[in-house]
Amino acid sequence: MSILALAGGVGGAKLADGLAAVLPPGELTVVVNTGDDFEHFGLHISPDIDTVTYTLAGINNLEQGWGLAGETWNCMGALERIGGETWFRLGDRDLATHLERTRRLKTETLSAITADFAARLGIKQRIVPMSDEPVRTMVDTNVGLIPFQDYFVRLACAPEVKGLTFNGLLQARPSAGFLEALHAPSLEAIVICPSNPFLSILPIISVTGILPLLAKRRVPMIVVSPIVGGKALKGPAAKMMLEFGMQPSSVAVAEYYAHNLLQMADGIVIDNEDAGEAERIKDLDVLVTGTIMRNRDDKSRLARDVLDFAKRVAPRPIPYTDPL
Amino acid sequence: MSILALAGGVGGAKLADGLAAVLPPGELTVVVNTGDDFEHFGLHISPDIDTVTYTLAGINNLEQGWGLAGETWNCMGALERIGGETWFRLGDRDLATHLERTRRLKTETLSAITADFAARLGIKQRIVPMSDEPVRTMVDTNVGLIPFQDYFVRLACAPEVKGLTFNGLLQARPSAGFLEALHAPSLEAIVICPSNPFLSILPIISVTGILPLLAKRRVPMIVVSPIVGGKALKGPAAKMMLEFGMQPSSVAVAEYYAHNLLQMADGIVIDNEDAGEAERIKDLDVLVTGTIMRNRDDKSRLARDVLDFAKRVAPRPIPYTDPL
Repeated sequence: MSILALAGGVGGAKLADGLAAVLPPGELTVVVNTGDDFEHFGLHISPDIDTVTYTLAGINNLEQGWGLAGETWNCMGALERIGGETWFRLGDRDLATHLERTRRLKTETLSAITADFAARLGIKQRIVPMSDEPVRTMVDTNVGLIPFQDYFVRLACAPEVKGLTFNGLLQARPSAGFLEALHAPSLEAIVICPSNPFLSILPIISVTGILPLLAKRRVPMIVVSPIVGGKALKGPAAKMMLEFGMQPSSVAVAEYYAHNLLQMADGIVIDNEDAGEAERIKDLDVLVTGTIMRNRDDKSRLARDVLDFAKRVAPRPIPYTDPL
Repeated sequence: MSILALAGGVGGAKLADGLAAVLPPGELTVVVNTGDDFEHFGLHISPDIDTVTYTLAGINNLEQGWGLAGETWNCMGALERIGGETWFRLGDRDLATHLERTRRLKTETLSAITADFAARLGIKQRIVPMSDEPVRTMVDTNVGLIPFQDYFVRLACAPEVKGLTFNGLLQARPSAGFLEALHAPSLEAIVICPSNPFLSILPIISVTGILPLLAKRRVPMIVVSPIVGGKALKGPAAKMMLEFGMQPSSVAVAEYYAHNLLQMADGIVIDNEDAGEAERIKDLDVLVTGTIMRNRDDKSRLARDVLDFAKRVAPRPIPYTDPL
């Protein structure tokens, strides 16, 4: 048996961590968005891969919600002293990941480096970038077309979003690990973690060749809603839904996955707080449960609920026609 | 009045610091070797410039002899955790310098960045790279031709040195600050700091166009011997002298600067411990004084001695003929 999870950063990493904990070693592949990757100070930074890796290794910073536990910020302090760029906060320990990744990328793929870091940190499941080739999310806003990290960190998601462009996506091939997980005869379910549908999941499923493979799948695809009570637990998902003319709710998430984004999701998991919305979700099977993950127990329980739900959901007939 | 000092790393930085302290602001230019510069983890590292800058800013690590005071090593610890390269020790605060320099080098010269860092750290004298173009010292050894930092740090100067190659030196132009200091009508003396003659001083004076300018100088050039009691206070200078067939001594340093390296040094400063060697130095004026710098007082006193000595030394007739 194997499970494929698609994830972005913090929220996705939490459910991925739960799945990693409840599944036997080697049965989970987490495919991670790399559209947030960027170059900073000459270093290759992969924020979502790092968040997933740190979280599954149990070395993530729980208070802060991102980065490493027990982090120090002496490099940042010294950067301030010499008038350096400090808008993107790089912890001293976190820097090691970026330095070593950058060094190794001269001769190795992002997949190989990601797998090796995960193994060294004791992770028993697979963490895989969506592609080994560069994809760079650009955000079209009322202040212009800006790189993702400028929107997300420097401008704290304040600009109004009109659209997204994923530079490089047409040229990027899926990583070998992504294809392997999709092709695995043992695959039992695909889980879309509670990540931002536009910024985290859209780039993953849009990597060339992935949609046709998803359309051919014989396993259920389960979405875990990132919206609870009309709000995103973290990040700009709800704000972006409003900017895209959608009312932020689990119903809207279900409609988006059922009709716009994927047209092939089979089930959605929504929070108890949104139980009243379940009846209004027409196109997907619905599981109502606690989706807020405050600790490892929450993560594992939600992971089990999602896996049990997947066993009861049948893959829908696929409306997708490969344009090629 | 102005003074030009040529310096490599730790030893040179100490005297440069003394000169900076006793000279009025703006009257000292320290031209620093960049042959030790290298790329590591995608970052541009300029070890000698950093040592001089940190020392003149009073933020250098006195116990360790290099790097920053109050340094932490959390990035290195995290690098070990992921199996990263740790042979070159990068402190958390020191990393800020490399990160910001690397970022700014995309649009600015090393000279501009070095000057700005120095100003932000409160330094009132000029610190100037010998060139804004890359020069990379390669060490020809019994284990092959290896990059300088591999020889110096990774192999701890253990290999036997047969010769040196300065990649890029023929193409590298002197920095504007170097030329300005040499051309300044106010120039009163050139001080060769107690740095390694082969690794630190040779590349500086070998930058294209510098030797002819030195030959035309009308001011004394004073060498401070890096050898005391037959040993180098720091680094492989004495070991290299032996490997090059020279007996490590201040006499040998004097002969090297008088006949081999520059042929235009006018005076040499040697340590009290080597007072007995003074009579055997024939071609240069000699000052015997304390050259070991344990604290700021030592540095300032030696700097004053060197400057006073320079006033009593006349530039020698120049044997140099410009081959062009």
